[in-house]
Amino acid sequence: MVLPVALLGAAAAAFADEGQWQPHQLPQLKSELKRVGITIPAEKLADLSKHPMSAIVSLGGCSASFVSPDGLIVTNHHCGYSAIQRNSTPEHNYIVNGFLAKTRAQELPGGPNTLVYVTEKVENVTDRVLKGLSPNLSGKERHEQVESRIKALIAECETDKAYRCTVPAFHRGLEYYRIKQLMIRDVRLVYAPSDRIGNFGGDIDNYEWPRQTGDFSFLRAYVGKDGRPADPSPDNVPYKSKDFLVVSSEGLKNGDPILLAGYPGRTSRYKLPSEIRFARDVDYPAKVASITADLSVIAAATMGNEAYDVRYASVVKSQNNVLKKTQGLLDGFARKDIAAIKDVQDAQFRAWYKQNGGANKNLLAELDAAIAADMTLSRQEFALSEATHSDLLKNARTLYRLALEHTKPDAKREAGYQERDVSFIKARLTRLEQSFVASVDEARFAAALKRYAKLDPKTRPHGLDALLPAPGAIPALYKSTQLGETDKRLAWIGKDPEAFRKSDDPFIQLAVRLQDVAGAVEERRKEVDGNLERVIPQYMAAVIEWKKSQGKPVYPDANSTLRVTYGTVSPYSPRDGLVKGPFSTVQGILEKATNKDPFIVPQALTQAVNEKRYGVYKDPVLGTVPVNFLSSADTTGGNSGSAVMNKRGELVGLNFDSTYESITKDWYFDSAITRAIHVDIRYMLWVMQEVDHADNLLKEMTIKFPKK
Amino acid sequence: MVLPVALLGAAAAAFADEGQWQPHQLPQLKSELKRVGITIPAEKLADLSKHPMSAIVSLGGCSASFVSPDGLIVTNHHCGYSAIQRNSTPEHNYIVNGFLAKTRAQELPGGPNTLVYVTEKVENVTDRVLKGLSPNLSGKERHEQVESRIKALIAECETDKAYRCTVPAFHRGLEYYRIKQLMIRDVRLVYAPSDRIGNFGGDIDNYEWPRQTGDFSFLRAYVGKDGRPADPSPDNVPYKSKDFLVVSSEGLKNGDPILLAGYPGRTSRYKLPSEIRFARDVDYPAKVASITADLSVIAAATMGNEAYDVRYASVVKSQNNVLKKTQGLLDGFARKDIAAIKDVQDAQFRAWYKQNGGANKNLLAELDAAIAADMTLSRQEFALSEATHSDLLKNARTLYRLALEHTKPDAKREAGYQERDVSFIKARLTRLEQSFVASVDEARFAAALKRYAKLDPKTRPHGLDALLPAPGAIPALYKSTQLGETDKRLAWIGKDPEAFRKSDDPFIQLAVRLQDVAGAVEERRKEVDGNLERVIPQYMAAVIEWKKSQGKPVYPDANSTLRVTYGTVSPYSPRDGLVKGPFSTVQGILEKATNKDPFIVPQALTQAVNEKRYGVYKDPVLGTVPVNFLSSADTTGGNSGSAVMNKRGELVGLNFDSTYESITKDWYFDSAITRAIHVDIRYMLWVMQEVDHADNLLKEMTIKFPKK
Repeated sequence: MVLPVALLGAAAAAFADEGQWQPHQLPQLKSELKRVGITIPAEKLADLSKHPMSAIVSLGGCSASFVSPDGLIVTNHHCGYSAIQRNSTPEHNYIVNGFLAKTRAQELPGGPNTLVYVTEKVENVTDRVLKGLSPNLSGKERHEQVESRIKALIAECETDKAYRCTVPAFHRGLEYYRIKQLMIRDVRLVYAPSDRIGNFGGDIDNYEWPRQTGDFSFLRAYVGKDGRPADPSPDNVPYKSKDFLVVSSEGLKNGDPILLAGYPGRTSRYKLPSEIRFARDVDYPAKVASITADLSVIAAATMGNEAYDVRYASVVKSQNNVLKKTQGLLDGFARKDIAAIKDVQDAQFRAWYKQNGGANKNLLAELDAAIAADMTLSRQEFALSEATHSDLLKNARTLYRLALEHTKPDAKREAGYQERDVSFIKARLTRLEQSFVASVDEARFAAALKRYAKLDPKTRPHGLDALLPAPGAIPALYKSTQLGETDKRLAWIGKDPEAFRKSDDPFIQLAVRLQDVAGAVEERRKEVDGNLERVIPQYMAAVIEWKKSQGKPVYPDANSTLRVTYGTVSPYSPRDGLVKGPFSTVQGILEKATNKDPFIVPQALTQAVNEKRYGVYKDPVLGTVPVNFLSSADTTGGNSGSAVMNKRGELVGLNFDSTYESITKDWYFDSAITRAIHVDIRYMLWVMQEVDHADNLLKEMTIKFPKK
Repeated sequence: MVLPVALLGAAAAAFADEGQWQPHQLPQLKSELKRVGITIPAEKLADLSKHPMSAIVSLGGCSASFVSPDGLIVTNHHCGYSAIQRNSTPEHNYIVNGFLAKTRAQELPGGPNTLVYVTEKVENVTDRVLKGLSPNLSGKERHEQVESRIKALIAECETDKAYRCTVPAFHRGLEYYRIKQLMIRDVRLVYAPSDRIGNFGGDIDNYEWPRQTGDFSFLRAYVGKDGRPADPSPDNVPYKSKDFLVVSSEGLKNGDPILLAGYPGRTSRYKLPSEIRFARDVDYPAKVASITADLSVIAAATMGNEAYDVRYASVVKSQNNVLKKTQGLLDGFARKDIAAIKDVQDAQFRAWYKQNGGANKNLLAELDAAIAADMTLSRQEFALSEATHSDLLKNARTLYRLALEHTKPDAKREAGYQERDVSFIKARLTRLEQSFVASVDEARFAAALKRYAKLDPKTRPHGLDALLPAPGAIPALYKSTQLGETDKRLAWIGKDPEAFRKSDDPFIQLAVRLQDVAGAVEERRKEVDGNLERVIPQYMAAVIEWKKSQGKPVYPDANSTLRVTYGTVSPYSPRDGLVKGPFSTVQGILEKATNKDPFIVPQALTQAVNEKRYGVYKDPVLGTVPVNFLSSADTTGGNSGSAVMNKRGELVGLNFDSTYESITKDWYFDSAITRAIHVDIRYMLWVMQEVDHADNLLKEMTIKFPKK
């Protein structure tokens, strides 16, 4: 038990710092950065070609960073999990035992889903996307023109096949940036601790504090001998990372400033009160009910069969994560009336807009209409997803769609079904074999169709009811389909639509049959989105103007692009009389140890703690090795694995989660209770030294030790 | 929500301070008192005739203190509860609405169970109790001789009927002190807030933190016009308290020193490892099972009948409290192997004792034998209590025993059945009417007899089985008894044993029938106690010598006598990454409000908080009114209502509870987690001012306000 005096030692100001900033915005925040104590110049942080930003990479869904000149990458354990899992066998169970390559030759292939993206260029292409669009276009026409321009911008950028380009919308379509990323496709597993360290606490501790999870792993990027990305090959060589983060083993103390850089996925900070109410009262409750039901179907269908259990483990984990997050949002909405807070802000904005005579007098009415249409369509999309909740059906629909799109010239194909996407689709279709059991999928599909049948008929897409199989017909579908076999499934890639239409595979038939209704929903989505894309950017421009009039810079909602946030190491009070964090320690691991998953502690770790072998990683205030810590930085999903840096830009930890009370931050950043959870670099280094003896990596990284 | 920065503002050393010191010991602790920051001289604290100790009183089971020269007393709400309850009617529900006497004339009688004891003299009478006892006496003979000397010492002291004297053993019989207390028997209810303040959180929050309970009430001591204690009478006048505590509205902050004075009931800090194991493995589990079963019998028997519910409310409350405390002890024992810690200390002591050649070479063997005999007997006593678990039977046994003792000269009567005790017995026998329903008692008795029948036959007192009623006979007992009527019950006082033997009341008959077996258990208890009293003091003397050799003073276990403890305001960490306290605030009350008992918040309080009417009671660090706080002081049951004083001896709060993790402190004081819970004087004053408008009392007390 750590004495509270230790935890409270440093009396510190707790700034909770809202904002996921585009790097180029940082110079506007100079004084803020100075206030929290960041010494690295804002201009330097804004330059993607310079250290430290040049060391920050994306794994596509996770964030990571280079920590050596030889392409060594550090990220979360859960971000490296697919690489760990695919190399694990009953004989070599790297999940439970961990994995360490002592030499480069021992490094293991990460598989087709483990990719590294290095952002090299970010260009504002707003004009090229929006300029000259006729104001008279229908929503669908506008959406398609924008999509078409974006595809052209991407194609122009991807002439060099080493690069992957995207043109995401910022501020809900006010601005567009073209992002050019080097895509490295030979990525290998270098080191992962046992999941008893990397996933200590498991789903039980997910989104919770106190937390003691060693959520880290190491990968390495490989390229061809010419230094350019190449398909996986033993001949490839480590990527020479232009820059990498220096590691500071000094760590942080309560109140210290931090910088955090990564690829946050999606936030909804600028949603209107009506959108919050829709999420709170309609959309999220429906999703919670659906996921809860689906999870119990999976539990019943896999019960007593360990092999089935394993197949669905990652589906269950991911569904539980979504469930906990969605339930957390609902709890947060119940705890604090965010809609009411937004009502006040919205009223202030509307009053300001009226007074300052915005260009479009109908803007606010158009806005409300576009959002109402979006809500109606969202309910139909939810109904469609319930009606098609089968992995085999989803695969069949993807395949048929691919065939349909293939009949068009590449530039005209739907985004996600172009030539550039085929390898990803193939990887996904292949991956199904790891997480599929026909009888379980059948049970899920049957249960989902029953849920669909109970939905308000007004929310069901027109004509869908008649196309769906009767409950009694479902077993026959699974008996006669061949889509459950990977090679048969993959064999459909490249076939023409006619082959699908003639197929007697019942899931292919169902996919063909559903195409018209699903296509209508999709067309409607384009119309609705097109209208939103016309109205919302005008609204956002006005909001930015309004905030500017108050002297406040505005950051765009997260959209999986590179962002920087800052904050301080700080505890929080979830309720009166109680303080959580900011640090947890190795003692907390032993406190939680139950010898039952997910609280099994590796013997070597227990021993090192009991023998107090803390070495240089002992925190002078805590008197022991810190494991996790909290900061006020502004993060969301996608920030997993993000580098947590000290004021000088040195690596001091990895972001991996946030507290339960913080979940509502995706909609509203409440500075009093929002905290991100990081794994402390000292714990990582300590585990590497005392538990896993990863001396080769400790040597490869540049580690600054505190002065004696 | 209070910002954590506020809670953590003052970085403070957390000293957890073991020791419930006899006031005369304090000069030995001068440097310790200085270390924590107490400025009041130790010699002054040691003098019971001087301020502040002269203002500290006992209510017999609770502690309290004078806060005006006119006998105004402050204590806990739960200590004044019986006075509040007896004055409450459906028309004047002082429990729910609170009570405030705006004038002396409005003050209400506290009833026969509300008494005030002012300790005036403490004499060491060890020699008079122990000197010249023959070493050859049997355990029983020794016990009786000691009891007889104690009775004589008491009788000598109680010649003045205004006083109540006791001669408790210290260090388990190593020392005896005669304590002379003025007993004031006209005590009136002056003010109590609503139990929605005074018992906010109820049983749910009992022993818990975060806590927001306004556990305070005010009484006033009255005496005859001659200034001496008198029976309750309208002619009585307020007692002129020689001293009283000045109130400091400045309050405390994290890390500040505190003094706490009161009458702690019972601790077991010097028990041997074998005694801890017996409690942990045998005695407490049996008690938990018994109480749990009894509570569910009461619940079933009172279900659906509100009047029955009310009758048993205080029984249930008190049993729940015992249950939670006993379960807390078991949880604590499971969390930390206190027996193992004591094993180490015990082994060290035994080694030291051997090396230093204690006077009695057989001491350690005699000690172990006496303790083993005590354990065996304890199991029989438990069995007897299960077999006689009926309020009517208990009353019958008390009455019969009183008659038996009455045949002896007063000095020879068993302690508790002398003339001096009769009025207390009468009060208890009368009080039954408030908490008795025949059908509920019948159900409890029947269930307890079933539990008895399942006990290991070896642990049942010899001959008891045959005397107990068959399950089928129980309803008849309740049908024909008249003991349920208060006047019939009281009419037995003064009757001779023959009248009992001839009675046809089935409970009187059963009491007569059980007397022999129960008497044999009692005789055996005297023998066992006599042996313990011979051996344990030798052991304690050696322990004190051993501690002295390490430079550590030794305080005696609590025994309901006046003690002083000190400590600091400090939070604690119940587990890694989590900090509790040290303060809670009025915001926490609103956070917990559910509009359902025990979390209903009075409207006036909600309004005052919402309007931020904090006045001078706003804490500069917290920015709001503090409600409860934690300190490291060493307390136990009986310390309820104890004055919490600042370094200058000014009243800054009242002790009323301790945290769940602290419960094991009765056996072992773990400085890292032991914290007492106090109500902050600022909350008391704020409630008096903003909620209840007790201006008359605020005026009567001497309150120091912080300098502007």
